[in-house]
Amino acid sequence: MHPDGAPRVGMVGGGQLARMSAAPAAALGIDFRVLASDLRESAAQVVHDVVLGAHDDLESLKRLAEGCAVVTFDHEHVPPAHLEQLEAMGVAVRPGPSALFHAQDKVHMRQALTDIGIPCPRWRVVDARDHVESFAEEVGWPVVMKTSRGGYDGRGVWVVDDPAQAAEVLDVPLAAGAQWLVEERIDFVQELSAQVARSPHGQAVAYPVVRTVQANGICSEVVAPAPGLAAERAVAAQELALRIARDLNVTGMLAVELFDDGAHLYVNELAMRPHNSGHWTIEGARTSQFENHLRAVLDLPLGSPAAVAPHAVMVNILGGDVPDLYSAYRHVMARDPGIKVHLYGKQVRPGRKVGHVTVVGNDLDDLLARGHHAADYFMGVIDE
Amino acid sequence: MHPDGAPRVGMVGGGQLARMSAAPAAALGIDFRVLASDLRESAAQVVHDVVLGAHDDLESLKRLAEGCAVVTFDHEHVPPAHLEQLEAMGVAVRPGPSALFHAQDKVHMRQALTDIGIPCPRWRVVDARDHVESFAEEVGWPVVMKTSRGGYDGRGVWVVDDPAQAAEVLDVPLAAGAQWLVEERIDFVQELSAQVARSPHGQAVAYPVVRTVQANGICSEVVAPAPGLAAERAVAAQELALRIARDLNVTGMLAVELFDDGAHLYVNELAMRPHNSGHWTIEGARTSQFENHLRAVLDLPLGSPAAVAPHAVMVNILGGDVPDLYSAYRHVMARDPGIKVHLYGKQVRPGRKVGHVTVVGNDLDDLLARGHHAADYFMGVIDE
Repeated sequence: MHPDGAPRVGMVGGGQLARMSAAPAAALGIDFRVLASDLRESAAQVVHDVVLGAHDDLESLKRLAEGCAVVTFDHEHVPPAHLEQLEAMGVAVRPGPSALFHAQDKVHMRQALTDIGIPCPRWRVVDARDHVESFAEEVGWPVVMKTSRGGYDGRGVWVVDDPAQAAEVLDVPLAAGAQWLVEERIDFVQELSAQVARSPHGQAVAYPVVRTVQANGICSEVVAPAPGLAAERAVAAQELALRIARDLNVTGMLAVELFDDGAHLYVNELAMRPHNSGHWTIEGARTSQFENHLRAVLDLPLGSPAAVAPHAVMVNILGGDVPDLYSAYRHVMARDPGIKVHLYGKQVRPGRKVGHVTVVGNDLDDLLARGHHAADYFMGVIDE
Repeated sequence: MHPDGAPRVGMVGGGQLARMSAAPAAALGIDFRVLASDLRESAAQVVHDVVLGAHDDLESLKRLAEGCAVVTFDHEHVPPAHLEQLEAMGVAVRPGPSALFHAQDKVHMRQALTDIGIPCPRWRVVDARDHVESFAEEVGWPVVMKTSRGGYDGRGVWVVDDPAQAAEVLDVPLAAGAQWLVEERIDFVQELSAQVARSPHGQAVAYPVVRTVQANGICSEVVAPAPGLAAERAVAAQELALRIARDLNVTGMLAVELFDDGAHLYVNELAMRPHNSGHWTIEGARTSQFENHLRAVLDLPLGSPAAVAPHAVMVNILGGDVPDLYSAYRHVMARDPGIKVHLYGKQVRPGRKVGHVTVVGNDLDDLLARGHHAADYFMGVIDE
């Protein structure tokens, strides 16, 4: 315990979400510890208290938990049995393992959402080509095939046009405990993300609903609030997210990724942690998703999720051909004194999320142009 | 050198200014190292790369500087000779020792400002009671007596009403190299602070001029922008600060503390680092003083200093009778979801700066009430 009474929070994972959580932890005077596998990991570079170990090793998790008021996560890959053991030892784990399991196993998630009446794409568990075929005959080709566990950023997801492609996907080896899930492909007009924070005592706040754009399964752009989304539909998305958080007993941040086909909303994915679709909140909201995640898991009253400007645009920087991101700073910063750059300290590899830029203001077209210019320059897509 | 090309910045000092610099360093992907005397110091708790040592020990400073693109400061107490030695070894020191010396020695500062025609209170170097007396006969009692070196937060400054009090002050032992300075007491209507960032290639940006309120020589409240300050006088204050930064070759952040007697502005103090009067910029400006200090010392283009809301209020949390600051969170956060709390991880001691709160928005009276309520509650001045 800290001299001024502040608790310690332990976060499993050394990625950029943990890195960006360090700033509000320091501001709140909270001791912040991460479990990282290597001191070169994104968060381990900047956090003082690093426990080296593996997220799937119980002894590592116990070392992380020592002296922590609460243990939380920057990813969903910790085995549920380990978390149950931590809980049995008296460690506060938030979100708890039974809630988190919905973000770990897509079949479990689909069943739980269906049970509580949340709209999802039609779905079925399959294990043979003819199962996929009969499902596709009901909903129409193409369909979406997913592994129930272990996918992220577009990995573990295939759009399948015909039975032959389905058979190819079914040949991909499954992770332990994973199943094949086939889903209706929603012909969406846009993808949305609705984020809420919820605390153990049941308080919850809803962030403005944002529009996300994916390229090759990876988030490339987020606009807050979602342009042209009617107020009643934004509220409907927030209500969905609040209901899911309550009914699944989520604590901390919950991101609900949604398909919008112009008439209806369908839940695509859930994430129970700070999420790429909420990076804009660092500059664009009164309380960032990273601060509210910490406040929520500590059962502190939540901060205002209100936007501080009419529009915010976040554009991801994906690794390109240029290993030296820093060399872009002079041009990007001189061109636009209002751009906010976040680099994650990660080695550049093609397609890897290595940073993002955010711009907030009044003129959405201007913000989009500025955000994409800066990100494109970092990625080496443009050179002026 | 970092895999993505980012440089390392070394900061001398482990206080809250270094702690608050860590967040923008992480966001910018810059390796950030601090020199602290103890791992329990404010910044050492949160920064990964801590060099333990003393700011007045050359070997410690050399260890800090190893592999750093630039060395900078969270306080002004490093001996100039040590900094000159670092420079002679090829280390980039920013601000450079000759600029920084103006913030280390008030006589040197007064002489330099007088030489370049910057308005100051009338001043004189004294070493005997009758010198003070003859100066006071010219400018009127009371006068202000200061040690030229080593004072901060009201220490080393006395308001003196008569020759007997002057004699008492002259009996206080002086630090090595220090002199006694006597100054005219300006009958000010308000105190202002004008902050600028300036980079080695000469770019400079000016923040909105703020009003500061001191209690017992310690800053207690900052309002941005200064309420009721006419636009042309605000510009005059910014021009003064920009001129001082240029003529004294300051790099990094410069804070110019000013007295406003309703007709004229007079420079009171200079600080060449992030400053308490700029904490509001974390939430209240497009680019915080901490980010612009890093950008300036790295000779990167500077970020926009523009305010993001009509008003910002910062209130310091000084140590009171309650050692457990964290216990106040539940009440403060539940009462005001928009309050931004910063605690520095410091042991509570009476009168010590242990944190601050910031609120930004449209209604200044509301912001002042909310900021003071939260700070008073943390300090134990009120209990509801």
